[in-house]
Amino acid sequence: MTIHNQAEIISIGTELLMGEIVDTNAKYLAAELRLIGIEVGRATTAGDDKTQLTPVFREALARTDLVLASGGLGPTDDDLTRDCVAEVLGETPFLDAALEQDLRDYFTRSGRQQMPAHNVRQAMLIPSAKPIPNPNGTAPGWWVEKNGKIIVLIPGPPREMEPMWRNEIRPRLIDRFPGKVALTRTLKVFGMGEATVNELVAPFFHLDNPTLGIYAKPDGIHLRLISRGDNAIALINNIEKQIRDILKDHIWGADEDTLPGATADLLLKKGLTLAVFDCGTGGTLSNLINGVESSLRYYRGSLVTGTDAVKTAFGIAAELVAEHGAISTAAAEAMAVIARSKFNSDIGLGITGISGIDGAAGEAPGTAFIGLADAQGTVHWHQTIIPRHNLARNQLAIAALFHLRERLLE
Amino acid sequence: MTIHNQAEIISIGTELLMGEIVDTNAKYLAAELRLIGIEVGRATTAGDDKTQLTPVFREALARTDLVLASGGLGPTDDDLTRDCVAEVLGETPFLDAALEQDLRDYFTRSGRQQMPAHNVRQAMLIPSAKPIPNPNGTAPGWWVEKNGKIIVLIPGPPREMEPMWRNEIRPRLIDRFPGKVALTRTLKVFGMGEATVNELVAPFFHLDNPTLGIYAKPDGIHLRLISRGDNAIALINNIEKQIRDILKDHIWGADEDTLPGATADLLLKKGLTLAVFDCGTGGTLSNLINGVESSLRYYRGSLVTGTDAVKTAFGIAAELVAEHGAISTAAAEAMAVIARSKFNSDIGLGITGISGIDGAAGEAPGTAFIGLADAQGTVHWHQTIIPRHNLARNQLAIAALFHLRERLLE
Repeated sequence: MTIHNQAEIISIGTELLMGEIVDTNAKYLAAELRLIGIEVGRATTAGDDKTQLTPVFREALARTDLVLASGGLGPTDDDLTRDCVAEVLGETPFLDAALEQDLRDYFTRSGRQQMPAHNVRQAMLIPSAKPIPNPNGTAPGWWVEKNGKIIVLIPGPPREMEPMWRNEIRPRLIDRFPGKVALTRTLKVFGMGEATVNELVAPFFHLDNPTLGIYAKPDGIHLRLISRGDNAIALINNIEKQIRDILKDHIWGADEDTLPGATADLLLKKGLTLAVFDCGTGGTLSNLINGVESSLRYYRGSLVTGTDAVKTAFGIAAELVAEHGAISTAAAEAMAVIARSKFNSDIGLGITGISGIDGAAGEAPGTAFIGLADAQGTVHWHQTIIPRHNLARNQLAIAALFHLRERLLE
Repeated sequence: MTIHNQAEIISIGTELLMGEIVDTNAKYLAAELRLIGIEVGRATTAGDDKTQLTPVFREALARTDLVLASGGLGPTDDDLTRDCVAEVLGETPFLDAALEQDLRDYFTRSGRQQMPAHNVRQAMLIPSAKPIPNPNGTAPGWWVEKNGKIIVLIPGPPREMEPMWRNEIRPRLIDRFPGKVALTRTLKVFGMGEATVNELVAPFFHLDNPTLGIYAKPDGIHLRLISRGDNAIALINNIEKQIRDILKDHIWGADEDTLPGATADLLLKKGLTLAVFDCGTGGTLSNLINGVESSLRYYRGSLVTGTDAVKTAFGIAAELVAEHGAISTAAAEAMAVIARSKFNSDIGLGITGISGIDGAAGEAPGTAFIGLADAQGTVHWHQTIIPRHNLARNQLAIAALFHLRERLLE
């Protein structure tokens, strides 16, 4: 049998095409297929309409040998997936006596009323289809094999789809296509724009194995390597090392790492506590820090302020602001010192920039400073921020976590 | 020109086919198209791969006269949407001088480094394409018309895609295909579960015009009415009135209203300032408040704390905590008073609950209190929170804004 490098996914349901619900099944199946080394070449969403759905199956089978489809296996008149597959394969559906009995048993077991007549549709099969058990609902899946092609039909509700994938479909696919599991590594970069990173790693985009992708994310730029084959680990390690040599400390993490998580781990490991004086992110930094549950163990608190007047009322000397401006390295460091002493923490962060500053504060818009105070003294970093309110707040908060991590690694 | 009853949507990005992210753009566009009377016949997801993406466009254009595609308009080598459309239409891309200047201006305006060479890709056009302005990013959209077909290319990031849809694409489509627009109204409810709301409005689910949908959202339950025809306004107003009579003050807003925006408007109208003492949401409340740009004009600051020790160090009497517990109505009101005086604001909010409390604080997990202090005195509300860290933080912050709004309306 061919090895399927490019499966296709079909999501069925008029509610998807009406924008009533987000299609999470396609994402789930795509992520799961990738983990067992099967790439997805295309995903299609079609409605509960036979004239639309039948060609979707016909076209997909013309392009690939493996099609996974979810949805349209219910008991009602607009559940047409079984009929479409029968038509595409030129087979006649029949009522399977064993499936019908299973279905009646399911209704008895669930303590529900007698099986409605409509539900008998769910006991239909075609000669090429084997039923896939569904302990969580009335619709069995179909595992169809014909002319070297595999079609897998899966119920649409995630609580039926996901266990059926894990317990029935995934093992069969691994069995059928062994040794293909792909290895991936994501490198996370901060402090450079997407185009700059792209230029620096440009030579690696043309590799076949591993392949390299670049993605702009709220916490910076992500580079993703995907490798296959017996040599996958060595291949991916080799390119990762070369990329790390180029981007150096701009890479702050890999794979599942998050900046709040990475700083949390370092703070907990070192037994250090943290506090923030934030006149720049309007609480975004505190919100990110506290998104990690373990923050309860090291986070002492934040002072978030909105105006220069309040800032000076919380301990920054008026003369310092008069001399250097509220948006200045001196103010950022003074705020860090105040955070550290007010909350009695080991580390204080001071953020001064956009949000909450009434304009005339010294530096031009787009300039922000991050100060840090710890037992060794104070340091600061400059951060250019894009002039869009909420993006800037997030970018500045991410920058603060990035530099906190740097300092903790020193 | 034909009226397109069945448009197609194409979502572009290898990360979608890898299951890295859920495709929310297709849902957004499908829902929006439906509201202006354009149905979607099929949605396809394709990767950043020219040999895969080109046939997706070719096939869609063979089936329909209107194709909307999002993604693949970035500055990097794997942003191929422009090239694929050029190939399908048999046109040669050229560098548009005006677009290039816009792009350079965008970089200058953002105070960023000089435009990287790669970005010039985003200034390419083909003869059939007109650029669609994108004030929120570097990639202009494309509005392409040829041989009676319309192709609309939209940047993938939702914060670029959604404003471009609202401000540029939607008006052009309405103009092109008039008389089909549906009228919608969304009513936003807080303080009742989905099942309760569902029961109370059950009679309206069976209407044909307007139709009613119910959706659980991070800021409560949304009820959406959609009406069509000459009588649409009267029909929708009639049902809205009946629903408002049933749900009363649980409805806090409609359509584009947000709780942070609604409270901002009220505070500004009344000329009142706000401060927060937050020992419950870990900064989520401050982050939501400051997500509204006008917060600079009324937000004085927040004290966000992580432990009982810090809380008592910031002015709550130890005896109060000893007598009532840190999670108590007395603590919530005391914190509100402290916020008001420390930040010299007209209104103080005090939040005490989960996050940041070391367990043994009196009330059972899942209990939180919101206190409010203003010139009239103090009030408090009880809020039950779901025991999941980040969901609970958000729920408590939303509850605080809901009750702040109530108080401001009194």
